[in-house]
Amino acid sequence: MTTKTAITPTRQENFAEWYQQVVKAADMAENSVVRGCMVIKPWGYGLWENIQRVFDKRFKETGHSNAYFPLLIPLSFLEKEADHVDGFAKECAVVTHHRLVADGKGGLKPDGELEEPLIIRPTSETIIGESFAKWIQSYRDLPLKINQWCNVMRWEMRTRLFLRTSEFLWQEGHTAHADEADARAETDQMLWIYHDTMRDYLAMPTFPGAKSPSERFAGAVDTYTCEAMMQDGKAVQAGTSHYLGQNFAKAAGIQFLDKDGQQKFAHTTSWGVSTRMIGAMIMTHADDDGMVMPPRVAPAHVVIIPMLKPDTADKVLDFCHSLKKQLVEQQYYGRNIDVIVDASDDRGRGWNWIKKGVPLRIEVGAREVEQGMVSLGRRDLPHTEKRSLTVAELMACLPQELDAMHNALVAKSLERMKKGLVEISTKEEFYKFFAEGKDSTFALVHWNGDAALEASLKQELGVTTRCLPFAEKTPGKCIFTGEHSPQRVIFAKAY
Amino acid sequence: MTTKTAITPTRQENFAEWYQQVVKAADMAENSVVRGCMVIKPWGYGLWENIQRVFDKRFKETGHSNAYFPLLIPLSFLEKEADHVDGFAKECAVVTHHRLVADGKGGLKPDGELEEPLIIRPTSETIIGESFAKWIQSYRDLPLKINQWCNVMRWEMRTRLFLRTSEFLWQEGHTAHADEADARAETDQMLWIYHDTMRDYLAMPTFPGAKSPSERFAGAVDTYTCEAMMQDGKAVQAGTSHYLGQNFAKAAGIQFLDKDGQQKFAHTTSWGVSTRMIGAMIMTHADDDGMVMPPRVAPAHVVIIPMLKPDTADKVLDFCHSLKKQLVEQQYYGRNIDVIVDASDDRGRGWNWIKKGVPLRIEVGAREVEQGMVSLGRRDLPHTEKRSLTVAELMACLPQELDAMHNALVAKSLERMKKGLVEISTKEEFYKFFAEGKDSTFALVHWNGDAALEASLKQELGVTTRCLPFAEKTPGKCIFTGEHSPQRVIFAKAY
Repeated sequence: MTTKTAITPTRQENFAEWYQQVVKAADMAENSVVRGCMVIKPWGYGLWENIQRVFDKRFKETGHSNAYFPLLIPLSFLEKEADHVDGFAKECAVVTHHRLVADGKGGLKPDGELEEPLIIRPTSETIIGESFAKWIQSYRDLPLKINQWCNVMRWEMRTRLFLRTSEFLWQEGHTAHADEADARAETDQMLWIYHDTMRDYLAMPTFPGAKSPSERFAGAVDTYTCEAMMQDGKAVQAGTSHYLGQNFAKAAGIQFLDKDGQQKFAHTTSWGVSTRMIGAMIMTHADDDGMVMPPRVAPAHVVIIPMLKPDTADKVLDFCHSLKKQLVEQQYYGRNIDVIVDASDDRGRGWNWIKKGVPLRIEVGAREVEQGMVSLGRRDLPHTEKRSLTVAELMACLPQELDAMHNALVAKSLERMKKGLVEISTKEEFYKFFAEGKDSTFALVHWNGDAALEASLKQELGVTTRCLPFAEKTPGKCIFTGEHSPQRVIFAKAY
Repeated sequence: MTTKTAITPTRQENFAEWYQQVVKAADMAENSVVRGCMVIKPWGYGLWENIQRVFDKRFKETGHSNAYFPLLIPLSFLEKEADHVDGFAKECAVVTHHRLVADGKGGLKPDGELEEPLIIRPTSETIIGESFAKWIQSYRDLPLKINQWCNVMRWEMRTRLFLRTSEFLWQEGHTAHADEADARAETDQMLWIYHDTMRDYLAMPTFPGAKSPSERFAGAVDTYTCEAMMQDGKAVQAGTSHYLGQNFAKAAGIQFLDKDGQQKFAHTTSWGVSTRMIGAMIMTHADDDGMVMPPRVAPAHVVIIPMLKPDTADKVLDFCHSLKKQLVEQQYYGRNIDVIVDASDDRGRGWNWIKKGVPLRIEVGAREVEQGMVSLGRRDLPHTEKRSLTVAELMACLPQELDAMHNALVAKSLERMKKGLVEISTKEEFYKFFAEGKDSTFALVHWNGDAALEASLKQELGVTTRCLPFAEKTPGKCIFTGEHSPQRVIFAKAY
């Protein structure tokens, strides 16, 4: 190591560049040759698989079933909901042909033009609505609660690995209900499932709240969001849940015969989290030495690093593999402890695992084998801090150690969020807080709800309303106009 | 029930139409408005999730990691491997634009033409090859063993749910190796993993073997296949594993510095199974009453059907839910027993569950509750055959009962395959065997390997070589030409 930290630049020096370097150093993802599309590498995808597992479990526990709907959406479907198409028209990948033929110059060209262009789904309300309209006939068919894990495409001009890519992976829940109350209860339930799962598994607490009208999902009546605060004070919208009213039901014809004999439109919801959440996790947990994987979704919990010297190599390796065998017998949050033995001859492997953020590092040399001891390092503690333990002690403390790391990550984030949420009571302070070039955090202010004012602040300062926090209920006076404000809202710069 | 069977027509009456009716009656999938794309409904997707789980486990146990690569492939990439592009050019969905704008007639039209058209992946050798070329520098980076679960698109003109759809779900394994022997060992290993997993989990034995040159994957040096025999005697290619030689490595530039200091091209493989396998499972297991779910991948193992009468309904329901609680504590092949209580007032629900193929049906009425008994039906036995058991007996026999059903399904398939594999020794017999309108099965014959002969048989009789079975090793004389034949091959009509 020629620098003090494994990642150059540090967060302090250049946060945006630090982020890119962490993704690269942790070997989680990379840009592909296809504009805006990423390759998710095994270490990043392993994280996503665990994220999927914990969310999927919650969805199933709350009565949702997985299904799969077509990738391609007819253009005319998108047009059915006016606000919705406005929101997505500018970033749609359009399929216009269904084969290739020789172009006469030794290459190929598109051929077989489609009668109607097809859009690669940017989200599936319209295509799933078509199915729902067929599946739902009577109040007995409601609620209908479906989820889909899939890829979606939004043609982004400026992309950043995980945070904003043209193609990304996500889940989209779609439900239909007999009345508004039931649909709103679902919208609410899913937002809290997002909030709790992000905190309890991803070690990422967020601010739950409602979006302002201008920040809502295109076509929604209400959008709820989990806003995560990054280490640089900016916001990431980590998950959203939408109450869609009867907008999409009317567009797709989702009707049912109610108990009272009346034909009614259903009330629908949709909700999603995506690989974008991984970007938020990186900017929440990673440090100047690289990624820090939250233990309950880490691609692996433990790496064992044998220190191999020619005359003792066999003995040390045997010890490591037998240690692994014992460790993988233990369960932690519904999954066997995942252990990697890195016996490569790469001298930088210790640092590689720090950069990858594996929660626990165990070093074993010939002396340790003789003494039946191991040396344990925990990723959220300074890398020089190592504890010497017997194998029995290690076995006994493993789940507690992982829990301790999880709790420390949560506590650290909560502390940062507490410090970073700044109550501001005058317009002047607000402008100063968000002045150009400054590392601002979240401003909690009274605002009259005016969309034109919101738009002008976005233009002037690059800040947006992130959410109307559920925890804020006190009315007051708008700091910009002095008008009535029903509650404080969060303004912040955002990714 | 007005007919003797739940499905009309029966297999005997019209196999193709019976298949469609089973998929519909079991509520597994349906056609979407998008040509050739299907909607996989929860009962079908639940099956797919379990299939994914059992295959994924085997892939990971054999050292493969999951990753994710872009959906879209630049046209120029596809062109790099000549045989490959020939194989897929006629069925590619082509993205040519990246946004929509008003068409001046109140609608929208594609806009923002791309400099280079992008293809929705029909398979990912070319785009994954691009990554492999970057990731692989030295022999130390080999073998590289990656798998991807994703959707792919092949624009099919004639589609059939699960069996042949324009979009389908699959996994594609892609590996790179230092030499031919290692790559061939991988190709072989994965074929046997497919074969064994299909038999041991999907209860679907298959004929493993090699494809003839004309039936190989576009760009492969060798293709191995698992050919399943349907109840009508036709074949379904249920999974394939390809040794790609250095073809794709040369096209993508996958080179490494070997131990001997030489720069060499890697040897690559690819292998895949898809939702098509579900179509094969249906035509293997289903009967004239509907789907029969193999217990080890069934979306649910058990349905409990309470017989509710006003005065005893509460007691019966309590009994059923408490029974469910006990059952779900048990594990079967790495997963808790999955139990559905269907307390709906649908009088056809008993038949619905038969049509859906749930392995075990438990009926509970007031009398059963009093006696602490349940009535058990097993899907592969006649639906009138029910056994009366105490709860303790049921708990004790559950895994055995599921195993018994699995074994019975396997035995039935093996019996059919044994009967259906007919050794044919003359050209005349062969033509008679495959005469038009006849329900032919698999013909095992000596053939000289001539591709022109193979093509003419395909044209005349609609039969193709399905595989050169690994189990066949005896040379002989071609039944068409009298020339040398290194081993017997299987000819059959195929889906």
